Amino acid sequence: MIDSDLIAAENAARAEALKFDYEMLGTQLARRGIDIDTIKKKVGSYGVAVPSWGVGTGGTRFARFPGGGEPRGIFDKLDDCGVIHQLTAATPTVSLHIPWDKEDPDALLEKAASLGLGFDAMNSNTFQDQPGQKLSYKYGSLSHTDPAVRAQAVEHNLECIEIGSKLGSKALTVWIGDGSNFPGQTDLTAQFERYLSAMQDIYKSLPDDWRLFSEHKMFEPAFYSTVVQDWGTNYLIAKELGERAFCLVDLGHHAPNTNIEMIVARLIQFGKLGGFHFNDSKYGDDDLDTGSIDPFRLFLVFNELVAAEGKDGFAPAHMLDQSHNVTDPIESLISSANEVRRAYAQALLVDRQALKGFQQENDALMGAATLKAAYRVDVEPILAMARQEAGAAIDPVAAYRASNYRAKVSAERPEVSGAGGGIV
Amino acid sequence: MIDSDLIAAENAARAEALKFDYEMLGTQLARRGIDIDTIKKKVGSYGVAVPSWGVGTGGTRFARFPGGGEPRGIFDKLDDCGVIHQLTAATPTVSLHIPWDKEDPDALLEKAASLGLGFDAMNSNTFQDQPGQKLSYKYGSLSHTDPAVRAQAVEHNLECIEIGSKLGSKALTVWIGDGSNFPGQTDLTAQFERYLSAMQDIYKSLPDDWRLFSEHKMFEPAFYSTVVQDWGTNYLIAKELGERAFCLVDLGHHAPNTNIEMIVARLIQFGKLGGFHFNDSKYGDDDLDTGSIDPFRLFLVFNELVAAEGKDGFAPAHMLDQSHNVTDPIESLISSANEVRRAYAQALLVDRQALKGFQQENDALMGAATLKAAYRVDVEPILAMARQEAGAAIDPVAAYRASNYRAKVSAERPEVSGAGGGIV
Amino acid sequence: MIDSDLIAAENAARAEALKFDYEMLGTQLARRGIDIDTIKKKVGSYGVAVPSWGVGTGGTRFARFPGGGEPRGIFDKLDDCGVIHQLTAATPTVSLHIPWDKEDPDALLEKAASLGLGFDAMNSNTFQDQPGQKLSYKYGSLSHTDPAVRAQAVEHNLECIEIGSKLGSKALTVWIGDGSNFPGQTDLTAQFERYLSAMQDIYKSLPDDWRLFSEHKMFEPAFYSTVVQDWGTNYLIAKELGERAFCLVDLGHHAPNTNIEMIVARLIQFGKLGGFHFNDSKYGDDDLDTGSIDPFRLFLVFNELVAAEGKDGFAPAHMLDQSHNVTDPIESLISSANEVRRAYAQALLVDRQALKGFQQENDALMGAATLKAAYRVDVEPILAMARQEAGAAIDPVAAYRASNYRAKVSAERPEVSGAGGGIV
Amino acid sequence: MIDSDLIAAENAARAEALKFDYEMLGTQLARRGIDIDTIKKKVGSYGVAVPSWGVGTGGTRFARFPGGGEPRGIFDKLDDCGVIHQLTAATPTVSLHIPWDKEDPDALLEKAASLGLGFDAMNSNTFQDQPGQKLSYKYGSLSHTDPAVRAQAVEHNLECIEIGSKLGSKALTVWIGDGSNFPGQTDLTAQFERYLSAMQDIYKSLPDDWRLFSEHKMFEPAFYSTVVQDWGTNYLIAKELGERAFCLVDLGHHAPNTNIEMIVARLIQFGKLGGFHFNDSKYGDDDLDTGSIDPFRLFLVFNELVAAEGKDGFAPAHMLDQSHNVTDPIESLISSANEVRRAYAQALLVDRQALKGFQQENDALMGAATLKAAYRVDVEPILAMARQEAGAAIDPVAAYRASNYRAKVSAERPEVSGAGGGIV
Repeated sequence: MIDSDLIAAENAARAEALKFDYEMLGTQLARRGIDIDTIKKKVGSYGVAVPSWGVGTGGTRFARFPGGGEPRGIFDKLDDCGVIHQLTAATPTVSLHIPWDKEDPDALLEKAASLGLGFDAMNSNTFQDQPGQKLSYKYGSLSHTDPAVRAQAVEHNLECIEIGSKLGSKALTVWIGDGSNFPGQTDLTAQFERYLSAMQDIYKSLPDDWRLFSEHKMFEPAFYSTVVQDWGTNYLIAKELGERAFCLVDLGHHAPNTNIEMIVARLIQFGKLGGFHFNDSKYGDDDLDTGSIDPFRLFLVFNELVAAEGKDGFAPAHMLDQSHNVTDPIESLISSANEVRRAYAQALLVDRQALKGFQQENDALMGAATLKAAYRVDVEPILAMARQEAGAAIDPVAAYRASNYRAKVSAERPEVSGAGGGIV
Repeated sequence: MIDSDLIAAENAARAEALKFDYEMLGTQLARRGIDIDTIKKKVGSYGVAVPSWGVGTGGTRFARFPGGGEPRGIFDKLDDCGVIHQLTAATPTVSLHIPWDKEDPDALLEKAASLGLGFDAMNSNTFQDQPGQKLSYKYGSLSHTDPAVRAQAVEHNLECIEIGSKLGSKALTVWIGDGSNFPGQTDLTAQFERYLSAMQDIYKSLPDDWRLFSEHKMFEPAFYSTVVQDWGTNYLIAKELGERAFCLVDLGHHAPNTNIEMIVARLIQFGKLGGFHFNDSKYGDDDLDTGSIDPFRLFLVFNELVAAEGKDGFAPAHMLDQSHNVTDPIESLISSANEVRRAYAQALLVDRQALKGFQQENDALMGAATLKAAYRVDVEPILAMARQEAGAAIDPVAAYRASNYRAKVSAERPEVSGAGGGIV
Repeated sequence: MIDSDLIAAENAARAEALKFDYEMLGTQLARRGIDIDTIKKKVGSYGVAVPSWGVGTGGTRFARFPGGGEPRGIFDKLDDCGVIHQLTAATPTVSLHIPWDKEDPDALLEKAASLGLGFDAMNSNTFQDQPGQKLSYKYGSLSHTDPAVRAQAVEHNLECIEIGSKLGSKALTVWIGDGSNFPGQTDLTAQFERYLSAMQDIYKSLPDDWRLFSEHKMFEPAFYSTVVQDWGTNYLIAKELGERAFCLVDLGHHAPNTNIEMIVARLIQFGKLGGFHFNDSKYGDDDLDTGSIDPFRLFLVFNELVAAEGKDGFAPAHMLDQSHNVTDPIESLISSANEVRRAYAQALLVDRQALKGFQQENDALMGAATLKAAYRVDVEPILAMARQEAGAAIDPVAAYRASNYRAKVSAERPEVSGAGGGIV
Repeated sequence: MIDSDLIAAENAARAEALKFDYEMLGTQLARRGIDIDTIKKKVGSYGVAVPSWGVGTGGTRFARFPGGGEPRGIFDKLDDCGVIHQLTAATPTVSLHIPWDKEDPDALLEKAASLGLGFDAMNSNTFQDQPGQKLSYKYGSLSHTDPAVRAQAVEHNLECIEIGSKLGSKALTVWIGDGSNFPGQTDLTAQFERYLSAMQDIYKSLPDDWRLFSEHKMFEPAFYSTVVQDWGTNYLIAKELGERAFCLVDLGHHAPNTNIEMIVARLIQFGKLGGFHFNDSKYGDDDLDTGSIDPFRLFLVFNELVAAEGKDGFAPAHMLDQSHNVTDPIESLISSANEVRRAYAQALLVDRQALKGFQQENDALMGAATLKAAYRVDVEPILAMARQEAGAAIDPVAAYRASNYRAKVSAERPEVSGAGGGIV
């Protein structure tokens, strides 16, 4: 954790300017009939989960270049997550990955509580082989041709539920790498049937108050076909499994040029939007920081979410899922949590009454202009004021840097080797 | 029609070589346990529909460069279609487009019968405004915000069914251009709800022995969102409408890099594959000649189709849908019908027993090799022999050129102006 | 032209709020060490050319849905362009297209002068056949296999220069549709050699104070290969031709996922950036309104342009090139001209000193944050103040609508038929 | 090495069928005026280099699933490469990667000679950090902002040249991962200037009879911008460096939908095609087996290469560059070497005289048909006969499996752990 006096001192230096900016923006929004405090309140209560693995430095198949003070395990990771939430007041929960984060549940609960954190969706892992694992996932997991491998993968997911139940988690996210690298390697239909059957076995054991999220992805690690390749297949899964099964949308898992906000709208319409893995991408599953490449697209996604607010049963889960290869992961997660809130705030500013009218009249230009009028507002004063009032930092990255947290943990946590793996 | 003596003479010059090639190939296939005559018989009975509009020269928004002897109307178009079928014995039916082909049904039936042709699926048109049309489709048709426009579009589709019923057609294909060009122009969800409601009105009037095909497309003419944008949405449509509603797959209507054969497999698995619009593409909906850009992809689609042969209720419709901008449309359609049959023949050669074994054992290399072993076979002797035995041409393009058909109709049909429209 | 009293009245109603917003923004920018008046001045002197064809309603190969009051010819088009400039003070020049806009030069000069307009780059057209044209461009123009066709295309370009010289234009933009639809249709190398040779013939006749712009495009109207397909080929052209030859970048002419701002940076570095065709796109050459789909990308392009300001010989041409299918073209061009200025204003706000430092230190997060800090500013008060001070409208679309200009010209200009062409 | 008696026995079982097939194909080709023995001779002398790292199992950032008998170092790798060449007679050289393959040059030469192998282009590695390395490449290598890092990267490349000189290599291939993950992270122009300067330092030290290959790639490991992102930038590099600098084309390093064969044609035309990294891809740099996804595209590349044969100074290098994640790498490399030869053989069958005529006459259909007539030929008998006559295997994969080579080396080489790295 960061010394709260330091945060207070950092905020003190910025409070006056923020007050001015917030008031001015309040005046401008009032002109549009919007009460800035109402927006601030909604934004302030909006949280996004942090993935435990996100606080470690990511990499590519070519190399990983670790930073200083890499977390040595889940307890270090929780410390880092705690700092993010302390500075942003926007990331109250952590999403665990099993077996990477497998530790004594009581110890995890205690540690999290001490940091003001809770636990979000559990993530299973059947896309890697672990030391001591009986059967390999080289040729698939939940969709493997061998029933014994499928059973092992199902078992692992049930264990994730079990662990999560002790931690207060209420959802299981299943992402698998199953697919194929060659036309002819697999029977596309039989493979999907096996997947569905295995998922049904998991679904059967899902506690009544849990949700099951399946996640689609166009490609990688499989490069010719992927079992859960797109939202169409993902929808079929959720439909086949039952009413507690939902689709998870990762912003980087789509074909080039795909209109993602329309997929979001369709899943909402048919009651199957489970939630998001937020990040940004330019080429593939780049896992870049949320909003760093196409912030307007992020806004358009939130435009659909805000439009659906209050809809019966609408409660999507929000999580960041990024790979921080060249930044301090804590800084990237701080920044990304803010970007999520920024898009949410902007979407709240949309004049939906006017928009509806323009849409009804096919006034394309004014429909577009209405969205842009909300998107163009610099809502940073709202975000910053919400943070300040929650005891977090007006400028979280500046406060983080001032704290020397990274230097401190670097001194405690041993250096990790950066030698590449030779996978080309 | 072409003089049958000419076809006979053309064939005579090629018969000996064909006999040699067919026998040699027969010997080689026998080594694999395949009876060439069985394959020939299946291929010979495989037909693909020709779209009436395909025999006219296509164009782009920039220009259209008409060829000589452009058909003046549906009767000229049927003449051209008759020639294609005469030379290939592969295109026994024509798919009409209303209102372009609206003529007295009895005259159409008589004309078609005289050419040995029947009528395939009917195509409605609500993506253009027609002279005398009351309400414009500028802002949509079946999904328009104005119920009067939707009613007009529904009415037009019912008329297509009515016309088709008189012609012996058994299916209606609905492709619309509805969508939007700007974020904010339309309410993505409400627009889809309106579409579904209008389609239900059409579905209600569908004769019991008809099928309704909806066709998805990623973009164009709408450039930000399209109501029926992908197979996921298309599946939802077919599911919502009922058991006689199916999805049509156009090979050029997908996002870049999409694995189309997997979509085909999924739609077959869930009983919703209606049929195909065959063509090829490199960039978008290029509507190039079938198999001209990626013949292996076409084979992989047929690999799924052959694998599903005999499955209960599996009877997809096949149609060419191409834009012939730089070739004689008759030649392109001849060539494309042959390409469809080629892919079918290659897919019939796949050793499915062996393939299944390799897939079960995760022998990726041999699974891939098994498909390639079938794909690599030059099946032209099988196609040519099937044509020869059906009284069609061994080399249909050569026979067509020898016939001087284009020159003859050019003399009869007045030249069409090629001036561009100035749409850039 | 719009009644200037109406503009004044419209502005009067908005002046107070603008004054407030401008002053507040001035205070906020001053905190960053930026003088808002300096920015306003630069923005106010920034103009973008309007294409003459842009004021007509566009369409697709499927249909064109004309609006009311379509311009009947270049004089009507100039009237519409005059309104755009009157309301925005941002579009002082018009780019003509020959032969569409071929009229008596003196009459054109007089008309333009009366509207306060000048003439920008000339555009030739060898992608369509014109009535009375001797040889067809169906199989290419400047790269055609027939030297007579090439000569005709060269001749047309020389005529464009001749006309432009009388109008005060200083540049010729050459975009051709040449390419192929089939592998094997053309010899890719020989075709490019013919193109280069023909372009050299044009370049030879270029007046000393003119520039020659070649424009690349990935696909459409050619769907397998395009002669000038990307910036690599475009660079080779400009290099081969000589120092007055430059590359034109259209934002919609690239492969999916392409980093366009990097292309801009490369062309600047090697002294070959000629200018832009601004628009936006989600799928292909969608020709949507500038900034409507990915405004951050537009900003990143301007970030490169501002970084290069003052570089020796750096004087790129700016033009809008859009297809307005569902909006009033005048409104879209007004809005787009503003978007260009918006991106320019935002790019001017980048703290380049700080950015350079972060880049030198590989502080990726702060480098990104520095760009975003500029991008996030709502610069509309700057744009609006610049317009107001130039006698244009604070809210140009509102003023335009209040003027009833469209209704007025609709009464004068006869309705255009919207019947589709049947190109599918 | 495989027991040559086993190969002989395997061939004996297939010799009769091959003789029949070869003769029949000879008869058929003779009909087209083609002498099959001439083709066989050209194909038989066509070799492609194997990358040393290709014989190890590849992986993704998510996981690597090692197979049995993974090579422990370069000497094991050379053994595996020796088997590939023994069975195919198509891979006479190996391309080394430094530092992975850094061993005593004399020992390497001796080992290679004993296996009948030589050494192809050297590959440097500045995309990973190595144990003991002074400065990190986390933020770039040849384009790093720190001159000391650039100097270290240059030095490494000079060492590669030095090692290669002792091994008889005549080329250095430079691929770097430099780029950025965020807009604003780097100055796109300055970064490229630094790269060019560092490359000039390398080029200066290039022996007179060496060539320098630079390799472009759209993305990965950098996900916003890559310094050498496309062939346009790659051409500029080769041009700036000098006449012994050339562009390397990896088939998987392009934007979606890119026409790669046109890039090949352009680089040939401007004298800058250095060579290829062969593989196949569906989505990104998938590094799948050559010809496994789009064999027609591979043929079209070879169509350009064969058309350029004999052109002054035309001598492109050919290398496989694949990642074998789910197959035995030896089998994949055997199969891929054959696919390269297959495409070459098919391209040799193109009737270039006829093609030229059709292209001159704009007979698009027959131009396309001419290519297809060559592509459709099943040239396997030619490839197999060439192998048989060279003492290699008629069916190399079958012979390899019969040899139990993998089982044998698995017994000798210790198992490698497959635990994933946790990079998500």
